[in-house]
Amino acid sequence: MDFLNKFKKCTQRGSFLCVGLDTDLDKIPPHLLKEKNPVFIFNKEIVEATSDLVCAYKINSAFYEAKGNAGIVSLKETIEFLERNYPEIPIILDAKRGDIGNTNCGYLEMAFEFLGVDAITLHPYLGKTSLMPFLERKAKFLFILCRTSNEGAGEFQDLLVEGGQKLYQKVAYNVSNEWNFNGNCGLVVGATYPDELKKVREISKEILILIPGVGTQGGDIELTVKSARKNFLINASRSIIYAGKEKDFAVRAREEAVKLKEEINKWL
Amino acid sequence: MDFLNKFKKCTQRGSFLCVGLDTDLDKIPPHLLKEKNPVFIFNKEIVEATSDLVCAYKINSAFYEAKGNAGIVSLKETIEFLERNYPEIPIILDAKRGDIGNTNCGYLEMAFEFLGVDAITLHPYLGKTSLMPFLERKAKFLFILCRTSNEGAGEFQDLLVEGGQKLYQKVAYNVSNEWNFNGNCGLVVGATYPDELKKVREISKEILILIPGVGTQGGDIELTVKSARKNFLINASRSIIYAGKEKDFAVRAREEAVKLKEEINKWL
Repeated sequence: MDFLNKFKKCTQRGSFLCVGLDTDLDKIPPHLLKEKNPVFIFNKEIVEATSDLVCAYKINSAFYEAKGNAGIVSLKETIEFLERNYPEIPIILDAKRGDIGNTNCGYLEMAFEFLGVDAITLHPYLGKTSLMPFLERKAKFLFILCRTSNEGAGEFQDLLVEGGQKLYQKVAYNVSNEWNFNGNCGLVVGATYPDELKKVREISKEILILIPGVGTQGGDIELTVKSARKNFLINASRSIIYAGKEKDFAVRAREEAVKLKEEINKWL
Repeated sequence: MDFLNKFKKCTQRGSFLCVGLDTDLDKIPPHLLKEKNPVFIFNKEIVEATSDLVCAYKINSAFYEAKGNAGIVSLKETIEFLERNYPEIPIILDAKRGDIGNTNCGYLEMAFEFLGVDAITLHPYLGKTSLMPFLERKAKFLFILCRTSNEGAGEFQDLLVEGGQKLYQKVAYNVSNEWNFNGNCGLVVGATYPDELKKVREISKEILILIPGVGTQGGDIELTVKSARKNFLINASRSIIYAGKEKDFAVRAREEAVKLKEEINKWL
């Protein structure tokens, strides 16, 4: 099943919450460190405690790559576990890749063949032509960075460009109108910038928006939901997965996920 | 020794040629496929045949990641081989990463702790603040994407931004004047765009420029050298490492490397 079908089915359960499995050995409960593969065990318990509450899982590649090939094994084990037990839930690899076309085929193979995820995040800087190998993969979904959640994101993204738009608005426009010929493009806009999110929704009409930046990064849920209006998923990572540090960490994660899911739905 | 010291020592040997180890199982000589680790054997032979001709090796991460954890093992073995036998030659990981600050620490650990390379390529889109974990690593070097070599690179990079510069020029300006407080920043500008390269040299004065796009991508050496003038390294990957398909592939690679090195020096 392609990404959008999985995603629609999951949102029909009434959730727009994406949980980020940004698992960091230094932050998981200490009792897990004696396990053979603590990262996988941690992810498994988090997933088992939250699977009925989410519309997607997002996995940030950086936290796994930090540990080299062993990290990639944990990443693959986590994805295989999800596919085997929760085939209905889409998996987004948050890898923020973007190279010239020839080289993107390597990243594409990593994400869609080796790992087998349903979607990936990509940088827009090299333009549509460079991303054609991705854009042509109809069944997979591509979230293009538009207005990122970080402090200082505006350095280039907020520059006014010819035509009178800001750069992030031009990215939103081009992705919606020129890149999305297969209907497999979405945008990434941070919850920390609700005014910009509103603007992106105006420009990009129906496009699916992946919204990080709530929880630890401080984005406001009410403002976020009212700005995005529809066709979005809100991701939280640290505030959910590290809610507890003890043996009941998965229960605590579930409590946070329930809270956030309901808070999102309250403003819909 | 830090990146710049290694690089200066290597260029004193009279080379501004960087060889790209963009090794792809589908493109290496067929007789190597019966080896246990064909990618590593291929890289080892290419390095042994070219080490006296280069000022750096660039390794594009995508070609290794495509094969998952096994690819990462080949990547690490290649880097360990280089460090053990050619500790004077700097290694650039062409990974084109760029995430929010917290997450960049994962990529930093991958590149500088796990792999132990000397430099990495990065996307500018999230701005200086996001890249602070990298910028603060004085001994390591960061090549920021500025004007990339691919067709269609101008979609965003050539947009006129407030102040009257094009986006890639603004990136060149900010990186040179605001990001480079530790003297560890360079830029990536494609040889396929010599006019833009000239403009970047005017804006960024002394900054080190990594120039891909010669060889298979078609960049002209004379124009490239005359546009960049000084403080550059020119990378070629496919045109060198795949010059031969037979058992003498390393000899053929050396011939191509000699030719390109001399062609660069001719126009200096």
